[in-house]
Amino acid sequence: MVLFEPLQLGSIQIPNRFAVPAMVTRLSGDDGFVNDGIIERYRRFAEGGAGLIVVEASSIHGGKSGPLLKISDDEFIPGMAALADACHTAGEGKVFLQIIHFLKVARSGWRQKVGDLSVEELELLPDLFADAAERAMEAGLDGVELHMAHAYTLSSMLSRMNRRRDHYGRTIENRLRLPSMVMQRVKERVGDFPVGVRFLADESIRRGYSADDASLFAIRFAELGAAYISLSVGGKFEDAVQREGQPLYPYTGYSGDRCMPGDSYPDAANIWLVKIIRDALRAAGHTTPVLGAGKIGTVELAEKVLGGAAPGPALSGPDTASCDIVGMARGLLADPYMPRKAMNGRRDEVVQCIYCNVCKSLDESFKTVVCYLWPKGAIQAPRPQESRAAAAANSSPNGCPPDSSVVPRASGGPAWGDEQELVAKVGPGEVRLRWSKPEHGEASGYDVLRSVDGGDYAVITSCTRTRHLDDMALRDHSLRYRVVPYDRSGFRGQSSNVVEVELDEVAL
Amino acid sequence: MVLFEPLQLGSIQIPNRFAVPAMVTRLSGDDGFVNDGIIERYRRFAEGGAGLIVVEASSIHGGKSGPLLKISDDEFIPGMAALADACHTAGEGKVFLQIIHFLKVARSGWRQKVGDLSVEELELLPDLFADAAERAMEAGLDGVELHMAHAYTLSSMLSRMNRRRDHYGRTIENRLRLPSMVMQRVKERVGDFPVGVRFLADESIRRGYSADDASLFAIRFAELGAAYISLSVGGKFEDAVQREGQPLYPYTGYSGDRCMPGDSYPDAANIWLVKIIRDALRAAGHTTPVLGAGKIGTVELAEKVLGGAAPGPALSGPDTASCDIVGMARGLLADPYMPRKAMNGRRDEVVQCIYCNVCKSLDESFKTVVCYLWPKGAIQAPRPQESRAAAAANSSPNGCPPDSSVVPRASGGPAWGDEQELVAKVGPGEVRLRWSKPEHGEASGYDVLRSVDGGDYAVITSCTRTRHLDDMALRDHSLRYRVVPYDRSGFRGQSSNVVEVELDEVAL
Repeated sequence: MVLFEPLQLGSIQIPNRFAVPAMVTRLSGDDGFVNDGIIERYRRFAEGGAGLIVVEASSIHGGKSGPLLKISDDEFIPGMAALADACHTAGEGKVFLQIIHFLKVARSGWRQKVGDLSVEELELLPDLFADAAERAMEAGLDGVELHMAHAYTLSSMLSRMNRRRDHYGRTIENRLRLPSMVMQRVKERVGDFPVGVRFLADESIRRGYSADDASLFAIRFAELGAAYISLSVGGKFEDAVQREGQPLYPYTGYSGDRCMPGDSYPDAANIWLVKIIRDALRAAGHTTPVLGAGKIGTVELAEKVLGGAAPGPALSGPDTASCDIVGMARGLLADPYMPRKAMNGRRDEVVQCIYCNVCKSLDESFKTVVCYLWPKGAIQAPRPQESRAAAAANSSPNGCPPDSSVVPRASGGPAWGDEQELVAKVGPGEVRLRWSKPEHGEASGYDVLRSVDGGDYAVITSCTRTRHLDDMALRDHSLRYRVVPYDRSGFRGQSSNVVEVELDEVAL
Repeated sequence: MVLFEPLQLGSIQIPNRFAVPAMVTRLSGDDGFVNDGIIERYRRFAEGGAGLIVVEASSIHGGKSGPLLKISDDEFIPGMAALADACHTAGEGKVFLQIIHFLKVARSGWRQKVGDLSVEELELLPDLFADAAERAMEAGLDGVELHMAHAYTLSSMLSRMNRRRDHYGRTIENRLRLPSMVMQRVKERVGDFPVGVRFLADESIRRGYSADDASLFAIRFAELGAAYISLSVGGKFEDAVQREGQPLYPYTGYSGDRCMPGDSYPDAANIWLVKIIRDALRAAGHTTPVLGAGKIGTVELAEKVLGGAAPGPALSGPDTASCDIVGMARGLLADPYMPRKAMNGRRDEVVQCIYCNVCKSLDESFKTVVCYLWPKGAIQAPRPQESRAAAAANSSPNGCPPDSSVVPRASGGPAWGDEQELVAKVGPGEVRLRWSKPEHGEASGYDVLRSVDGGDYAVITSCTRTRHLDDMALRDHSLRYRVVPYDRSGFRGQSSNVVEVELDEVAL
């Protein structure tokens, strides 16, 4: 599989194409120092086998930085060194630090804009970024990623909303001027230490830019020697929702939905934009690796967007890849051990993100970011239990089971007791499911599976509760449901009974 | 080419895959009757050869309907009959009427929502739609299209924003209930008279629905016998911009941008959503034709989204089509004669939409919708001049010239006089072009072409003025420009001189 192949990023190599994109944890204190909680979070990504781990955005300038880590002074180097060391001890993945400059936001709703900055203020940025990159290098990290995405300073320079009348605004070259200076200054300072860049494929705001502008940005950063190009979408201030007494937060509006597409969105909802940009980059002769992200949550889908899964004649046709590295923020938050499980042929033990966006809501509410699928109260993902992992390894040493293999295995698993009892209550336009816990209480979550008109069962959600409302069922179709429990290692138990229903009709 | 092939829509056949989606003209008076301006607008689409012409949304209920036509009473039948007759006389295309129900909107900002309606009010709709469809049939139209897209009543029922607590809200089946009743009632009333349906592939609003919900809608309407499924995007009230003293207008926000993607968007910006929905429909065993739209402006791109242009091995692979009919609202507004020109091998005479969205702005400003590329002051697209058309037919009777053939032809054209003089003024991050008019004043517009680093020339814009600011140029690349005039028939003249520049650098 392409997903398991190594890839060169500038002067270093990542062991596979799984990437953890920068994701705020809100585990950091106000002081901006790395703490034990932060280290534990990233250690799990490393243990789990991700090839590229991008540590959450760290501020390059002094002053308040809310929930962010800092790299604005040499005093932050030891903490970063401990983080790098923990990850390098735990796994083979390379660890990059995302470095960020942002403008002021007040609780009143006021925010500083790039149009407010003097040329002198703007021109301080390249050295601030270069200083931060140098500190990351000193700390033993494997690279830095320049944050030019979402609502922050460099993204606002690239934005179509940047209407500065001087040579830093309006036209594409002027919008690129400061970001290009930053990349150049950083590269001059750190030599062949890898420098990646993340920017938006599409702003997802009224009068914002889309993939055509982003293709030119990609070409520019490739020319300047970016180790990789990471593409996100949305996450802007322009459409953020003002909440009483809170500073404006850029993931609360529609562009925040597009940044972290939830369960209503199609899989890989942003990949068509990534493909346009990567194709433009390749057409311009650049081989710079491109990272795509946005609701790519399964091994199968990841392989597909890497161009590896197209069956038959298409393989001999043009390049079908949409990206070279797959960013999975929420997918790897739910189960940091997905890469290792997949590489060991244990795909059926992955706890699969359902894109409920509880993690996103926690971030927006200024709370520690955890996953809804983790055991209740946990602030870190559960480690697979050693005994279970060993049992798993014994029962199926090699090879990848088929996609639909969430069915329980006959042997090698824990004792779950008798099958769970599933009951359905049907109303106009809805099916309410409720089931009992397994007898021996091993379950940390449940996959809910549905078959329509006798077709294959598909997981429609996973949950930690013992009930689910199916609001996506159509009348005049036969619906079958069953539930499969899994333990904290992701090891699936025995299926419940099957219930078969049809939606009740309404007398009109 | 697939684009030129006929297609069955229920009981009738359209002669080709070019479609004019419903597009408000604001040529109608407050009375809602068809007038001469309306007839002239649609006559051109028919003359131009479009296979399917959907007449702008016509209101099915009494009362004020702003700029809309009406079909809410038998008194509107004669006007519609005249419109149908004019189109049928002028061309082979089939003429459908889009029928719409909408809720009240006040200048105060207040608007009626589907949650405000009683069950009794909702249940009046199926008969209103059926009455309107019957009138359209009586008027001699070829079919009707049920408007379930954008910000109107049935779309609001389908929306994820429909939080009604009764059996008309929240779940997918409940959201589908009233729209399904409408489709059923209309079908019962009109027999095998074709009934198409238009709804959103994606709402493009915060917490809105996307292609997964839309796939279920498509399956439902296919089950109910829709003649075709037409997919749009966005155009919602939820993010509309409130303008002082004006009623809220649903194309003014971000979702309006996504509905009619402008020049900042990639080509065929919505087609990836259309493909997801069409694939789901086909997987469910339905062959119902699907119409895709959204910045599909050229014959080449139209053929590509129809799956006809994939070269080499991919042809033997799975179905690569994204849609079966191509909706081109702005493209056919700019040049209603595009289909006929394309079918006659005269693609190089098409006046190509540049997605400047002047048409969209006019609509939002409650002004008659015209095209920026039409001759100054015109309220209808210019007809190709007979002499020019004849000359064109003589000089190249058959076959399709290559894509890049906007270069002037050596013979058969009008006398343009000496070449135009093009000059460029270069500043930091921008290139300002200015050119003289052709000596003999034949030009109604100009294509501006650019070559980067010696590559092929591509049209970067067309305009009616004699100047252009290129704000999409990158430094460190060699840029060449030239300008080609065209007359009101779209017949290209001689190229201007070539200017070669590089962007000025800024001393920093």
